[in-house]
Amino acid sequence: MLNLSDEFQPMKNLIIASTSTVYGKGYLEYLLDEISELFKDSTEVIFVPYARPGGISHDEYTKVASKAFKKIDKKVVGLHTFSNPKEALANAGGVFTGGGNTFVLVTKLYQHDLLVPMREAIFKGLPYLGTSAGSNICGLTMQTTNDMPIMYPPSFKTLGVVPFNINPHYLDPDPDSTHMGETRETRIKEFHTQNASPVIGLREGSWLQVKQSDITLKGALTARIFEHNKEPYEIESGTIIDYF
Amino acid sequence: MLNLSDEFQPMKNLIIASTSTVYGKGYLEYLLDEISELFKDSTEVIFVPYARPGGISHDEYTKVASKAFKKIDKKVVGLHTFSNPKEALANAGGVFTGGGNTFVLVTKLYQHDLLVPMREAIFKGLPYLGTSAGSNICGLTMQTTNDMPIMYPPSFKTLGVVPFNINPHYLDPDPDSTHMGETRETRIKEFHTQNASPVIGLREGSWLQVKQSDITLKGALTARIFEHNKEPYEIESGTIIDYF
Repeated sequence: MLNLSDEFQPMKNLIIASTSTVYGKGYLEYLLDEISELFKDSTEVIFVPYARPGGISHDEYTKVASKAFKKIDKKVVGLHTFSNPKEALANAGGVFTGGGNTFVLVTKLYQHDLLVPMREAIFKGLPYLGTSAGSNICGLTMQTTNDMPIMYPPSFKTLGVVPFNINPHYLDPDPDSTHMGETRETRIKEFHTQNASPVIGLREGSWLQVKQSDITLKGALTARIFEHNKEPYEIESGTIIDYF
Repeated sequence: MLNLSDEFQPMKNLIIASTSTVYGKGYLEYLLDEISELFKDSTEVIFVPYARPGGISHDEYTKVASKAFKKIDKKVVGLHTFSNPKEALANAGGVFTGGGNTFVLVTKLYQHDLLVPMREAIFKGLPYLGTSAGSNICGLTMQTTNDMPIMYPPSFKTLGVVPFNINPHYLDPDPDSTHMGETRETRIKEFHTQNASPVIGLREGSWLQVKQSDITLKGALTARIFEHNKEPYEIESGTIIDYF
Protein backbone atom coordinates (compact mmCIF):
# COMPACT_ATOMS: atom_id res chain seq x y z
CA MET A 1 0.00 0.00 0.00
CA LEU A 2 2.95 2.32 0.67
CA ASN A 3 6.33 2.47 -1.00
CA LEU A 4 8.84 2.75 1.77
CA SER A 5 12.40 3.56 0.83
CA ASP A 6 15.20 1.38 2.18
CA GLU A 7 16.50 4.18 4.37
CA PHE A 8 13.15 4.60 6.11
CA GLN A 9 13.27 3.48 9.74
CA PRO A 10 9.77 2.67 10.94
CA MET A 11 8.99 4.06 14.38
CA LYS A 12 6.30 1.52 15.10
CA ASN A 13 4.80 1.35 18.58
CA LEU A 14 1.93 -1.10 18.92
CA ILE A 15 0.20 -3.60 21.13
CA ILE A 16 -1.53 -6.29 19.10
CA ALA A 17 -3.63 -8.31 21.53
CA SER A 18 -5.51 -11.56 21.00
CA THR A 19 -8.50 -10.37 23.02
CA SER A 20 -9.81 -7.32 24.86
CA THR A 21 -10.96 -9.43 27.77
CA VAL A 22 -9.64 -12.53 29.49
CA TYR A 23 -11.97 -14.85 31.34
CA GLY A 24 -13.01 -13.53 34.75
CA LYS A 25 -11.65 -10.00 34.26
CA GLY A 26 -13.11 -6.70 33.06
CA TYR A 27 -12.74 -5.11 29.65
CA LEU A 28 -9.00 -4.46 28.93
CA GLU A 29 -8.25 -5.03 32.63
CA TYR A 30 -5.35 -7.45 32.10
CA LEU A 31 -3.66 -4.99 29.72
CA LEU A 32 -4.11 -1.70 31.57
CA ASP A 33 -0.46 -1.31 32.62
CA GLU A 34 0.71 -1.98 29.08
CA ILE A 35 -1.85 0.40 27.60
CA SER A 36 -0.89 3.09 30.08
CA GLU A 37 2.73 2.79 28.98
CA LEU A 38 1.82 2.66 25.27
CA PHE A 39 -0.22 5.85 25.44
CA LYS A 40 1.93 7.64 28.04
CA ASP A 41 2.44 10.63 25.72
CA SER A 42 -1.09 10.65 24.28
CA THR A 43 -3.54 13.16 25.72
CA GLU A 44 -6.40 11.69 23.71
CA VAL A 45 -6.89 8.30 22.07
CA ILE A 46 -9.08 7.83 19.01
CA PHE A 47 -11.25 4.74 19.23
CA VAL A 48 -12.22 2.87 16.05
CA PRO A 49 -15.61 1.31 16.87
CA TYR A 50 -16.43 -0.04 13.39
CA ALA A 51 -16.20 -3.76 14.28
CA ARG A 52 -19.29 -3.41 16.51
CA PRO A 53 -19.30 -6.68 18.51
CA GLY A 54 -22.83 -8.05 18.74
CA GLY A 55 -24.02 -5.10 16.64
CA ILE A 56 -23.50 -2.53 19.43
CA SER A 57 -23.72 1.09 18.18
CA HIS A 58 -20.59 3.16 17.56
CA ASP A 59 -21.55 5.46 20.44
CA GLU A 60 -22.21 2.65 22.89
CA TYR A 61 -19.01 0.85 21.96
CA THR A 62 -17.00 4.06 22.40
CA LYS A 63 -18.49 4.39 25.90
CA VAL A 64 -17.20 0.90 26.76
CA ALA A 65 -13.69 1.86 25.64
CA SER A 66 -13.90 5.25 27.40
CA LYS A 67 -14.82 3.62 30.69
CA ALA A 68 -11.74 1.36 30.59
CA PHE A 69 -9.41 4.19 29.54
CA LYS A 70 -10.72 6.42 32.31
CA LYS A 71 -8.96 4.08 34.76
CA ILE A 72 -5.64 5.22 33.27
CA ASP A 73 -6.80 8.85 32.95
CA LYS A 74 -7.04 8.88 29.19
CA LYS A 75 -9.77 10.48 27.14
CA VAL A 76 -11.24 8.45 24.28
CA VAL A 77 -12.99 9.93 21.22
CA GLY A 78 -14.82 7.80 18.66
CA LEU A 79 -13.48 8.00 15.11
CA HIS A 80 -17.09 8.04 13.90
CA THR A 81 -17.60 11.48 15.52
CA PHE A 82 -15.07 13.24 13.25
CA SER A 83 -16.32 14.88 10.07
CA ASN A 84 -12.94 14.09 8.48
CA PRO A 85 -11.76 10.75 9.91
CA LYS A 86 -8.72 10.63 7.57
CA GLU A 87 -7.45 13.89 8.97
CA ALA A 88 -8.29 12.76 12.50
CA LEU A 89 -6.12 9.65 12.07
CA ALA A 90 -3.26 11.64 10.55
CA ASN A 91 -3.24 13.97 13.58
CA ALA A 92 -4.03 11.38 16.25
CA GLY A 93 -1.92 10.98 19.36
CA GLY A 94 -3.04 7.37 19.79
CA VAL A 95 -5.46 4.90 18.21
CA PHE A 96 -7.31 1.91 19.62
CA THR A 97 -9.23 -0.40 17.28
CA GLY A 98 -11.62 -2.64 19.20
CA GLY A 99 -12.79 -6.15 18.36
CA GLY A 100 -16.01 -7.37 16.82
CA ASN A 101 -16.56 -8.48 13.25
CA THR A 102 -13.47 -8.13 11.06
CA PHE A 103 -15.50 -8.10 7.82
CA VAL A 104 -17.54 -5.13 9.04
CA LEU A 105 -14.42 -3.35 10.33
CA VAL A 106 -12.45 -3.78 7.11
CA THR A 107 -15.42 -2.83 4.90
CA LYS A 108 -15.88 0.41 6.86
CA LEU A 109 -12.14 1.20 6.77
CA TYR A 110 -12.19 0.81 2.98
CA GLN A 111 -15.42 2.81 2.61
CA HIS A 112 -13.85 5.73 4.48
CA ASP A 113 -10.50 5.21 2.73
CA LEU A 114 -8.70 4.90 6.07
CA LEU A 115 -6.31 1.99 5.67
CA VAL A 116 -3.50 3.95 3.98
CA PRO A 117 -3.59 6.93 6.42
CA MET A 118 -3.74 4.54 9.37
CA ARG A 119 -0.76 2.57 8.08
CA GLU A 120 1.19 5.75 7.34
CA ALA A 121 0.52 7.09 10.84
CA ILE A 122 1.58 3.78 12.45
CA PHE A 123 4.84 3.72 10.48
CA LYS A 124 5.51 7.28 11.66
CA GLY A 125 5.12 6.25 15.32
CA LEU A 126 1.41 6.55 16.14
CA PRO A 127 0.83 4.44 19.28
CA TYR A 128 -1.71 1.78 18.27
CA LEU A 129 -3.63 -0.74 20.32
CA GLY A 130 -5.57 -3.51 18.61
CA THR A 131 -7.67 -6.24 20.18
CA SER A 132 -9.14 -9.17 18.28
CA ALA A 133 -10.46 -7.74 14.97
CA GLY A 134 -8.35 -4.62 15.65
CA SER A 135 -5.32 -6.92 15.83
CA ASN A 136 -6.28 -9.02 12.86
CA ILE A 137 -6.05 -5.94 10.61
CA CYS A 138 -2.41 -5.42 11.62
CA GLY A 139 -1.52 -8.50 9.58
CA LEU A 140 -0.95 -8.71 5.83
CA THR A 141 -4.53 -9.77 5.19
CA MET A 142 -7.65 -10.48 7.24
CA GLN A 143 -7.76 -14.01 5.84
CA THR A 144 -7.10 -15.73 9.17
CA THR A 145 -10.00 -14.11 10.99
CA ASN A 146 -12.47 -16.37 12.83
CA ASP A 147 -15.41 -14.12 11.99
CA MET A 148 -18.42 -14.66 9.77
CA PRO A 149 -18.41 -12.90 6.39
CA ILE A 150 -21.44 -10.77 7.21
CA MET A 151 -20.26 -7.92 4.95
CA TYR A 152 -18.36 -8.06 1.65
CA PRO A 153 -15.20 -5.93 1.87
CA PRO A 154 -13.61 -4.57 -1.33
CA SER A 155 -10.46 -6.53 -0.50
CA PHE A 156 -9.06 -8.80 2.23
CA LYS A 157 -5.77 -6.81 2.33
CA THR A 158 -5.16 -5.06 5.62
CA LEU A 159 -2.53 -2.84 7.25
CA GLY A 160 0.52 -5.10 6.89
CA VAL A 161 2.14 -3.56 9.95
CA VAL A 162 3.67 -6.96 10.75
CA PRO A 163 5.02 -9.32 8.05
CA PHE A 164 2.59 -12.16 8.78
CA ASN A 165 -1.07 -12.88 9.47
CA ILE A 166 -2.69 -13.01 12.89
CA ASN A 167 -5.21 -15.47 14.24
CA PRO A 168 -6.64 -13.91 17.40
CA HIS A 169 -8.43 -15.97 20.06
CA TYR A 170 -6.31 -18.94 18.96
CA LEU A 171 -7.92 -22.10 20.28
CA ASP A 172 -6.25 -25.48 20.74
CA PRO A 173 -8.09 -28.54 19.44
CA ASP A 174 -10.22 -30.12 22.17
CA PRO A 175 -9.21 -33.81 22.39
CA ASP A 176 -12.61 -34.69 23.91
CA SER A 177 -14.70 -32.97 21.26
CA THR A 178 -17.13 -34.98 19.15
CA HIS A 179 -17.74 -32.00 16.85
CA MET A 180 -16.73 -32.69 13.25
CA GLY A 181 -16.29 -29.05 12.14
CA GLU A 182 -12.71 -28.02 11.37
CA THR A 183 -10.36 -27.19 14.25
CA ARG A 184 -8.57 -23.84 14.20
CA GLU A 185 -5.35 -25.62 13.25
CA THR A 186 -7.05 -27.31 10.27
CA ARG A 187 -8.44 -23.96 9.13
CA ILE A 188 -5.01 -22.33 9.24
CA LYS A 189 -3.52 -25.29 7.37
CA GLU A 190 -6.21 -24.77 4.72
CA PHE A 191 -5.14 -21.10 4.55
CA HIS A 192 -1.66 -22.36 3.65
CA THR A 193 -2.99 -24.31 0.70
CA GLN A 194 -3.81 -20.92 -0.85
CA ASN A 195 -1.37 -18.48 0.79
CA ALA A 196 2.28 -18.59 1.85
CA SER A 197 2.31 -15.94 4.63
CA PRO A 198 3.18 -17.13 8.15
CA VAL A 199 0.36 -17.05 10.71
CA ILE A 200 0.65 -16.40 14.44
CA GLY A 201 -2.01 -18.06 16.54
CA LEU A 202 -2.30 -15.71 19.55
CA ARG A 203 -4.04 -17.29 22.53
CA GLU A 204 -6.27 -15.17 24.77
CA GLY A 205 -3.99 -13.35 27.22
CA SER A 206 -1.14 -13.03 24.71
CA TRP A 207 -0.14 -9.95 22.78
CA LEU A 208 2.57 -8.77 20.43
CA GLN A 209 4.50 -5.70 21.40
CA VAL A 210 5.91 -3.90 18.36
CA LYS A 211 8.64 -1.35 19.02
CA GLN A 212 10.32 0.03 15.93
CA SER A 213 11.27 -3.17 14.07
CA ASP A 214 11.12 -5.52 17.06
CA ILE A 215 8.09 -7.74 17.50
CA THR A 216 7.98 -9.52 20.88
CA LEU A 217 5.49 -12.08 22.17
CA LYS A 218 4.14 -10.98 25.57
CA GLY A 219 1.82 -12.45 28.20
CA ALA A 220 2.03 -15.71 30.11
CA LEU A 221 1.34 -18.14 27.26
CA THR A 222 3.19 -19.55 24.29
CA ALA A 223 1.97 -18.74 20.78
CA ARG A 224 1.58 -21.16 17.88
CA ILE A 225 3.37 -20.37 14.64
CA PHE A 226 2.18 -21.72 11.32
CA GLU A 227 4.63 -21.42 8.45
CA HIS A 228 3.94 -22.57 4.92
CA ASN A 229 5.05 -26.18 4.36
CA LYS A 230 6.29 -26.57 7.95
CA GLU A 231 4.88 -28.30 11.00
CA PRO A 232 3.37 -25.73 13.38
CA TYR A 233 5.42 -24.96 16.47
CA GLU A 234 5.25 -23.01 19.74
CA ILE A 235 7.25 -19.95 20.72
CA GLU A 236 7.78 -18.83 24.30
CA SER A 237 6.68 -15.51 25.72
CA GLY A 238 9.55 -13.04 25.29
CA THR A 239 10.54 -14.39 21.88
CA ILE A 240 11.45 -11.70 19.36
CA ILE A 241 9.82 -12.59 16.06
CA ASP A 242 12.41 -11.40 13.57
CA TYR A 243 12.81 -14.38 11.30
CA PHE A 244 10.09 -14.02 8.67
CA MET B 1 -29.81 -15.11 -10.52
CA LEU B 2 -32.70 -16.52 -12.61
CA ASN B 3 -36.01 -14.94 -13.44
CA LEU B 4 -38.60 -17.56 -12.72
CA SER B 5 -42.11 -16.96 -13.92
CA ASP B 6 -44.99 -17.34 -11.50
CA GLU B 7 -46.27 -20.43 -13.25
CA PHE B 8 -42.95 -22.22 -12.92
CA GLN B 9 -43.19 -25.18 -10.54
CA PRO B 10 -39.73 -26.02 -9.26
CA MET B 11 -39.02 -29.75 -9.20
CA LYS B 12 -36.40 -29.51 -6.50
CA ASN B 13 -35.00 -32.70 -4.99
CA LEU B 14 -32.17 -32.14 -2.51
CA ILE B 15 -30.56 -33.26 0.69
CA ILE B 16 -28.80 -30.38 2.43
CA ALA B 17 -26.81 -31.90 5.28
CA SER B 18 -24.96 -30.21 8.12
CA THR B 19 -22.01 -32.58 7.88
CA SER B 20 -20.70 -35.46 5.79
CA THR B 21 -19.66 -37.38 8.87
CA VAL B 22 -21.07 -37.76 12.36
CA TYR B 23 -18.83 -38.64 15.27
CA GLY B 24 -17.85 -42.31 15.37
CA LYS B 25 -19.14 -43.16 11.88
CA GLY B 26 -17.59 -43.35 8.42
CA TYR B 27 -17.86 -40.79 5.64
CA LEU B 28 -21.56 -40.31 4.67
CA GLU B 29 -22.42 -43.51 6.58
CA TYR B 30 -25.33 -42.03 8.55
CA LEU B 31 -26.93 -40.73 5.33
CA LEU B 32 -26.47 -43.71 3.01
CA ASP B 33 -30.13 -44.77 2.95
CA GLU B 34 -31.24 -41.22 2.18
CA ILE B 35 -28.60 -40.81 -0.50
CA SER B 36 -29.57 -44.11 -2.07
CA GLU B 37 -33.17 -42.90 -2.29
CA LEU B 38 -32.17 -39.43 -3.56
CA PHE B 39 -30.07 -40.85 -6.39
CA LYS B 40 -32.26 -43.88 -7.14
CA ASP B 41 -32.67 -42.89 -10.78
CA SER B 42 -29.12 -41.62 -11.27
CA THR B 43 -26.66 -43.96 -12.94
CA GLU B 44 -23.77 -41.58 -12.30
CA VAL B 45 -23.28 -38.78 -9.78
CA ILE B 46 -21.03 -35.81 -10.46
CA PHE B 47 -18.91 -34.88 -7.46
CA VAL B 48 -17.90 -31.24 -6.93
CA PRO B 49 -14.56 -31.46 -5.08
CA TYR B 50 -13.67 -27.75 -5.12
CA ALA B 51 -13.99 -27.15 -1.35
CA ARG B 52 -10.93 -29.40 -0.78
CA PRO B 53 -11.04 -29.99 3.00
CA GLY B 54 -7.54 -29.75 4.46
CA GLY B 55 -6.24 -28.96 0.97
CA ILE B 56 -6.80 -32.51 -0.36
CA SER B 57 -6.48 -32.75 -4.18
CA HIS B 58 -9.58 -32.90 -6.39
CA ASP B 59 -8.65 -36.46 -7.41
CA GLU B 60 -8.10 -37.67 -3.86
CA TYR B 61 -11.30 -36.05 -2.64
CA THR B 62 -13.25 -37.66 -5.49
CA LYS B 63 -11.85 -41.04 -4.42
CA VAL B 64 -13.22 -40.48 -0.90
CA ALA B 65 -16.68 -39.75 -2.30
CA SER B 66 -16.47 -42.68 -4.76
CA LYS B 67 -15.66 -45.11 -1.97
CA ALA B 68 -18.76 -44.11 -0.01
CA PHE B 69 -21.03 -44.16 -3.08
CA LYS B 70 -19.73 -47.62 -4.04
CA LYS B 71 -21.61 -48.95 -1.01
CA ILE B 72 -24.88 -47.96 -2.70
CA ASP B 73 -23.64 -49.07 -6.16
CA LYS B 74 -23.32 -45.58 -7.59
CA LYS B 75 -20.51 -44.36 -9.80
CA VAL B 76 -19.00 -40.97 -8.98
CA VAL B 77 -17.16 -38.73 -11.45
CA GLY B 78 -15.28 -35.58 -10.40
CA LEU B 79 -16.53 -32.35 -11.99
CA HIS B 80 -12.88 -31.32 -12.39
CA THR B 81 -12.36 -34.12 -14.95
CA PHE B 82 -14.81 -32.65 -17.48
CA SER B 83 -13.44 -30.35 -20.19
CA ASN B 84 -16.79 -28.52 -20.13
CA PRO B 85 -18.06 -28.55 -16.53
CA LYS B 86 -21.04 -26.30 -17.40
CA GLU B 87 -22.29 -28.81 -19.93
CA ALA B 88 -21.56 -31.65 -17.51
CA LEU B 89 -23.78 -30.04 -14.86
CA ALA B 90 -26.57 -29.34 -17.34
CA ASN B 91 -26.63 -33.02 -18.34
CA ALA B 92 -25.94 -34.51 -14.90
CA GLY B 93 -28.15 -37.21 -13.41
CA GLY B 94 -27.12 -36.23 -9.90
CA VAL B 95 -24.69 -33.89 -8.14
CA PHE B 96 -22.91 -34.09 -4.79
CA THR B 97 -20.97 -31.08 -3.50
CA GLY B 98 -18.67 -32.05 -0.64
CA GLY B 99 -17.54 -29.97 2.31
CA GLY B 100 -14.30 -28.13 2.94
CA ASN B 101 -13.68 -24.42 2.62
CA THR B 102 -16.71 -22.46 1.39
CA PHE B 103 -14.59 -19.51 0.19
CA VAL B 104 -12.54 -21.80 -2.04
CA LEU B 105 -15.66 -23.63 -3.27
CA VAL B 106 -17.55 -20.43 -4.15
CA THR B 107 -14.51 -18.81 -5.78
CA LYS B 108 -14.04 -21.86 -8.03
CA LEU B 109 -17.76 -22.02 -8.89
CA TYR B 110 -17.62 -18.37 -9.98
CA GLN B 111 -14.34 -18.85 -11.86
CA HIS B 112 -15.90 -21.66 -13.90
CA ASP B 113 -19.23 -19.79 -14.17
CA LEU B 114 -21.11 -22.73 -12.68
CA LEU B 115 -23.55 -21.20 -10.19
CA VAL B 116 -26.26 -20.35 -12.72
CA PRO B 117 -26.19 -23.72 -14.55
CA MET B 118 -26.15 -25.55 -11.21
CA ARG B 119 -29.12 -23.55 -9.96
CA GLU B 120 -31.02 -24.05 -13.23
CA ALA B 121 -30.41 -27.80 -13.12
CA ILE B 122 -31.56 -28.01 -9.49
CA PHE B 123 -34.78 -26.11 -10.27
CA LYS B 124 -35.42 -28.56 -13.12
CA GLY B 125 -35.15 -31.53 -10.75
CA LEU B 126 -31.46 -32.48 -10.63
CA PRO B 127 -31.01 -34.59 -7.47
CA TYR B 128 -28.48 -32.70 -5.35
CA LEU B 129 -26.64 -33.67 -2.18
CA GLY B 130 -24.71 -31.07 -0.22
CA THR B 131 -22.71 -31.52 2.95
CA SER B 132 -21.24 -28.66 4.99
CA ALA B 133 -19.81 -26.17 2.43
CA GLY B 134 -21.87 -27.94 -0.24
CA SER B 135 -24.95 -27.20 1.87
CA ASN B 136 -23.95 -23.66 2.71
CA ILE B 137 -24.06 -22.74 -1.00
CA CYS B 138 -27.73 -23.82 -1.19
CA GLY B 139 -28.60 -20.74 0.86
CA LEU B 140 -29.09 -17.18 -0.39
CA THR B 141 -25.52 -16.24 0.45
CA MET B 142 -22.45 -17.93 1.95
CA GLN B 143 -22.39 -15.31 4.70
CA THR B 144 -23.15 -17.73 7.53
CA THR B 145 -20.26 -20.07 6.81
CA ASN B 146 -17.88 -20.96 9.65
CA ASP B 147 -14.90 -21.09 7.33
CA MET B 148 -11.84 -18.89 7.08
CA PRO B 149 -11.73 -16.42 4.17
CA ILE B 150 -8.68 -18.05 2.60
CA MET B 151 -9.76 -17.01 -0.94
CA TYR B 152 -11.57 -13.87 -2.10
CA PRO B 153 -14.69 -14.81 -4.08
CA PRO B 154 -16.18 -12.35 -6.60
CA SER B 155 -19.38 -12.33 -4.55
CA PHE B 156 -20.89 -13.96 -1.46
CA LYS B 157 -24.15 -14.76 -3.33
CA THR B 158 -24.81 -18.45 -3.73
CA LEU B 159 -27.44 -20.76 -5.22
CA GLY B 160 -30.51 -19.52 -3.35
CA VAL B 161 -32.20 -22.90 -3.66
CA VAL B 162 -33.80 -22.32 -0.26
CA PRO B 163 -35.11 -18.90 0.89
CA PHE B 164 -32.75 -18.55 3.84
CA ASN B 165 -29.14 -18.97 4.85
CA ILE B 166 -27.60 -22.11 6.33
CA ASN B 167 -25.15 -22.46 9.17
CA PRO B 168 -23.80 -26.00 8.97
CA HIS B 169 -22.11 -27.72 11.94
CA TYR B 170 -24.23 -25.53 14.20
CA LEU B 171 -22.71 -25.59 17.67
CA ASP B 172 -24.46 -24.68 20.92
CA PRO B 173 -22.63 -22.36 23.31
CA ASP B 174 -20.59 -24.32 25.86
CA PRO B 175 -21.66 -23.10 29.32
CA ASP B 176 -18.32 -24.26 30.80
CA SER B 177 -16.16 -22.47 28.25
CA THR B 178 -13.71 -19.81 29.39
CA HIS B 179 -12.99 -18.82 25.78
CA MET B 180 -13.93 -15.21 25.02
CA GLY B 181 -14.24 -15.57 21.22
CA GLU B 182 -17.79 -15.19 19.87
CA THR B 183 -20.20 -18.11 20.15
CA ARG B 184 -21.94 -19.29 17.00
CA GLU B 185 -25.17 -17.68 18.19
CA THR B 186 -23.41 -14.33 18.65
CA ARG B 187 -21.93 -14.55 15.17
CA ILE B 188 -25.34 -15.23 13.61
CA LYS B 189 -26.84 -12.35 15.60
CA GLU B 190 -24.08 -10.14 14.18
CA PHE B 191 -25.08 -11.36 10.70
CA HIS B 192 -28.55 -9.99 11.44
CA THR B 193 -27.18 -6.54 12.15
CA GLN B 194 -26.27 -6.40 8.43
CA ASN B 195 -28.70 -8.81 6.76
CA ALA B 196 -32.38 -9.69 7.16
CA SER B 197 -32.44 -13.27 5.77
CA PRO B 198 -33.42 -16.05 8.18
CA VAL B 199 -30.66 -18.51 9.15
CA ILE B 200 -31.04 -22.19 9.96
CA GLY B 201 -28.46 -23.56 12.36
CA LEU B 202 -28.21 -27.23 11.35
CA ARG B 203 -26.58 -29.42 13.97
CA GLU B 204 -24.37 -32.33 12.93
CA GLY B 205 -26.68 -35.25 12.12
CA SER B 206 -29.47 -33.00 10.81
CA TRP B 207 -30.36 -32.37 7.20
CA LEU B 208 -32.99 -30.60 5.15
CA GLN B 209 -34.90 -32.64 2.62
CA VAL B 210 -36.18 -30.47 -0.22
CA LYS B 211 -38.89 -32.01 -2.40
CA GLN B 212 -40.45 -29.62 -4.89
CA SER B 213 -41.43 -26.67 -2.67
CA ASP B 214 -41.39 -28.56 0.64
CA ILE B 215 -38.40 -28.18 2.94
CA THR B 216 -38.40 -30.62 5.86
CA LEU B 217 -36.00 -30.90 8.78
CA LYS B 218 -34.72 -34.47 9.11
CA GLY B 219 -32.49 -36.38 11.51
CA ALA B 220 -32.79 -36.92 15.26
CA LEU B 221 -32.09 -33.37 16.43
CA THR B 222 -33.88 -30.06 16.56
CA ALA B 223 -32.55 -27.13 14.50
CA ARG B 224 -32.12 -23.55 15.64
CA ILE B 225 -33.82 -20.81 13.65
CA PHE B 226 -32.57 -17.25 13.65
CA GLU B 227 -34.94 -14.67 12.23
CA HIS B 228 -34.18 -10.97 11.96
CA ASN B 229 -35.35 -9.06 15.06
CA LYS B 230 -36.69 -12.21 16.76
CA GLU B 231 -35.37 -14.40 19.54
CA PRO B 232 -33.87 -17.60 18.11
CA TYR B 233 -35.98 -20.73 18.53
CA GLU B 234 -35.88 -24.48 17.98
CA ILE B 235 -37.84 -26.52 15.48
CA GLU B 236 -38.45 -30.26 15.77
CA SER B 237 -37.33 -32.84 13.27
CA GLY B 238 -40.15 -33.34 10.77
CA THR B 239 -41.08 -29.65 10.70
CA ILE B 240 -41.88 -28.34 7.24
CA ILE B 241 -40.18 -24.98 6.83
CA ASP B 242 -42.68 -23.07 4.72
CA TYR B 243 -43.06 -19.83 6.61
CA PHE B 244 -40.26 -17.60 5.33
